[in-house]
Amino acid sequence: MKGDGKKIHMQEVVTRDGFQSESDFVDTGRKIELVNQLSECGYAKIEVTSFTSPRAIPALRDAEEVMQGIIRNPSVEYTVLVPNVRGAERALSCDVDEANLVMSASESHNLSNLRMTREASFSGLKEVVKEVQPTRTAINVSLSTAFGCPMEGEVPLDTVLSWVERFAEMDVRGITLCDTTGMAYPTQVAKVISAFKERFSNLQLTVHLHNTRGMALSNALAAIQAGADRFDSSLGGLGGCPYAPGATGNVCTEDLVHMLELMGYNTGVDLDKTLNAASLLPGLVHHEVPSQVLKAGRRLDLHPTPDFVKGRLGSEPER
Amino acid sequence: MKGDGKKIHMQEVVTRDGFQSESDFVDTGRKIELVNQLSECGYAKIEVTSFTSPRAIPALRDAEEVMQGIIRNPSVEYTVLVPNVRGAERALSCDVDEANLVMSASESHNLSNLRMTREASFSGLKEVVKEVQPTRTAINVSLSTAFGCPMEGEVPLDTVLSWVERFAEMDVRGITLCDTTGMAYPTQVAKVISAFKERFSNLQLTVHLHNTRGMALSNALAAIQAGADRFDSSLGGLGGCPYAPGATGNVCTEDLVHMLELMGYNTGVDLDKTLNAASLLPGLVHHEVPSQVLKAGRRLDLHPTPDFVKGRLGSEPER
Repeated sequence: MKGDGKKIHMQEVVTRDGFQSESDFVDTGRKIELVNQLSECGYAKIEVTSFTSPRAIPALRDAEEVMQGIIRNPSVEYTVLVPNVRGAERALSCDVDEANLVMSASESHNLSNLRMTREASFSGLKEVVKEVQPTRTAINVSLSTAFGCPMEGEVPLDTVLSWVERFAEMDVRGITLCDTTGMAYPTQVAKVISAFKERFSNLQLTVHLHNTRGMALSNALAAIQAGADRFDSSLGGLGGCPYAPGATGNVCTEDLVHMLELMGYNTGVDLDKTLNAASLLPGLVHHEVPSQVLKAGRRLDLHPTPDFVKGRLGSEPER
Repeated sequence: MKGDGKKIHMQEVVTRDGFQSESDFVDTGRKIELVNQLSECGYAKIEVTSFTSPRAIPALRDAEEVMQGIIRNPSVEYTVLVPNVRGAERALSCDVDEANLVMSASESHNLSNLRMTREASFSGLKEVVKEVQPTRTAINVSLSTAFGCPMEGEVPLDTVLSWVERFAEMDVRGITLCDTTGMAYPTQVAKVISAFKERFSNLQLTVHLHNTRGMALSNALAAIQAGADRFDSSLGGLGGCPYAPGATGNVCTEDLVHMLELMGYNTGVDLDKTLNAASLLPGLVHHEVPSQVLKAGRRLDLHPTPDFVKGRLGSEPER
C-alpha cells in the first residue's frame, strides 16, 4: 500500500468537466488565468475545454479563445474534449496536444447523453480518429459508465473490454475508464483495472472517478494496487452528478493528491499551489465546492493552542 | 481486499457523538424512537448517550431518561460515554452494557478538551474503572488524537501504545483508537493498527474515523487489511469537527456499510433500515447531513430510462 515514490500522473479536468455544468458563465479571461495557474501546479495533463457545439454546452462556448489564450507549459499536455469531426477540426486548429473522444459503454447512457446509439457514436468517432491521426495529435477515448450505468445497472466487463478493443485496433494512445455516476467500488475497480492491464498493456490507461457515494479515494487506491498510475480529478471536486442532486461528483484533486502524497506516492502536484487555485473557485462559480482539504486544511496544518492550555503544558513530563 | 463474508462489527454513535454538538435540542422522545429504530438495524453496539454534566453538554442532558426509555434488543450492546465517577454511578444505575471512558493521547488535546492533564485524566479514569469493574459491566477506553493532534501534530506511536498499555494493565475489555480530527491516512492507519494488534491481541479494538479530509473510507479499508474488524460510525455522518467549520466529521454509517457490503464484508447492518433512519435526521437536527448514499442512493438504485431513450433501445443487438 505504501507509495515508495511511485509516480502517479494527475490530469486536471476542472475547466472542462467542472465548468461545463455550471449555470453561471465563467469569464473567458478568468478561465485562461485559471488554466495558466494550473499549468504551474505539476499536472501531467490539463483538459482545457470542450469543442462541442456552443448551443449544447454554452458554458464552454469560448473553447477557441481559451485554448488559444493560455500560456502553454511544455511539461504539460493540453487535451480537449472532441465529440465529432467538426470539433476535431476546431481542436486541431488550436494545435491541442490530445483529442479526448467520448462514448458510453452502456447503450441507455449513450442514447441519453449523446442522443445516438453506441454504434453510431463509434462510427462517428472512427471518422474523428481518421481526421486526427494524420496530424500526430494524440487520441484518447473516454468510456463512460465503465463501472455501471445509472439506468441499466451493471455493465458487463466483457462489454467494456470489447469497446476498448475496438478503439485499440484503431491505435489510439489511451483509454479512460469513467465511473460517470459514482457506481464503482474497490473490489470491482481492482477487477476491471487488472483485466484491462492484462489485455491492453500498451494503452495509456486513465481512471476517472466520481465521489458520488463517497468511495472515490478508496477506488483510487484499489486502482493503483491493480496497476493504474493515471487519474483524472477536478479542482475543488467541481462537477456534479446529474443523477444525484446535492451529491458530489468528480473526485477532488486536492483531496486525492493530499492522500497519495501522505502515502508516499509522487504525484508531481504542488499541493500549496493547487489549494491556492482551488480557493478561487467559489468566486468563479458562486457556490461552495465539495473539497474537504480546502475546508479542513492539510493534516499538519495545525491549530493554535489555546492560552489556557499553553500555561499548563510542560507541567508534567512528556510520555 | 475482498470481504469473503468476513464479519465487521458496526457501532452506531449518532445519538451520542452526533447529537452532542447540535445546537438544537433533540426531543427526548425522538431520541428514544431513533435508538429503538437503530436497535433493529443490526449494529453490534449503540452508543446511546453521555453521562457528562448537563451543563457541559446540554444536548445530552436527558441521558437517564433516554437510557431508561429505550427498548433494548438483546443482540445489541448499549454503551454510554462516562467521564468520571459521578457519570459512572449514573450509568450503572441505568444498567448499561458498557461504559466508554475517554481521554486523549496528546497532552494539548486532553487539556483543551477535558481541561486536565493526561495524568489527571488517567487517575480519574482509574477510579471509574474501580467503580465499574465489580459490576461486571464492560469497560472500553476511547483514546482521542491517536492518529494526530490538531495542536501538536504527529502523536508518536509509542505514546499511543503506552496509554493503551496502562489501560490494558487494568484489564479493560476494549480500546477505541480515535482519529478525532481526521488526520489519519491509510499507510499510517495500517501501521498503527498492526502495532496494536501485535501487542494487544486480547483487547477488543474499535477504530473511530473522521472524514474531515475525505479519507475515512480509505482508512477503514486500511484498518481492515491490518486486522481491525470493528468500527464506530455515525448515521448520516452527523457530528462535526470543531477545528474545521463546514468540514465533515464522523465517518458516515451508511456510506461505510454500503461500501463494505459491496466488497463482500458482512456488517450485519440492514442498509434499507439504516437509510430509513438516516432520512429522519435532517428533521431532527434541522440541517442537511453529509451522508453521500442518503443523497445519491445505493449504486444499484437505478434511474428511469427517459422515454426518448426507451423507444430506441433494442434497435441494435446488445454487445
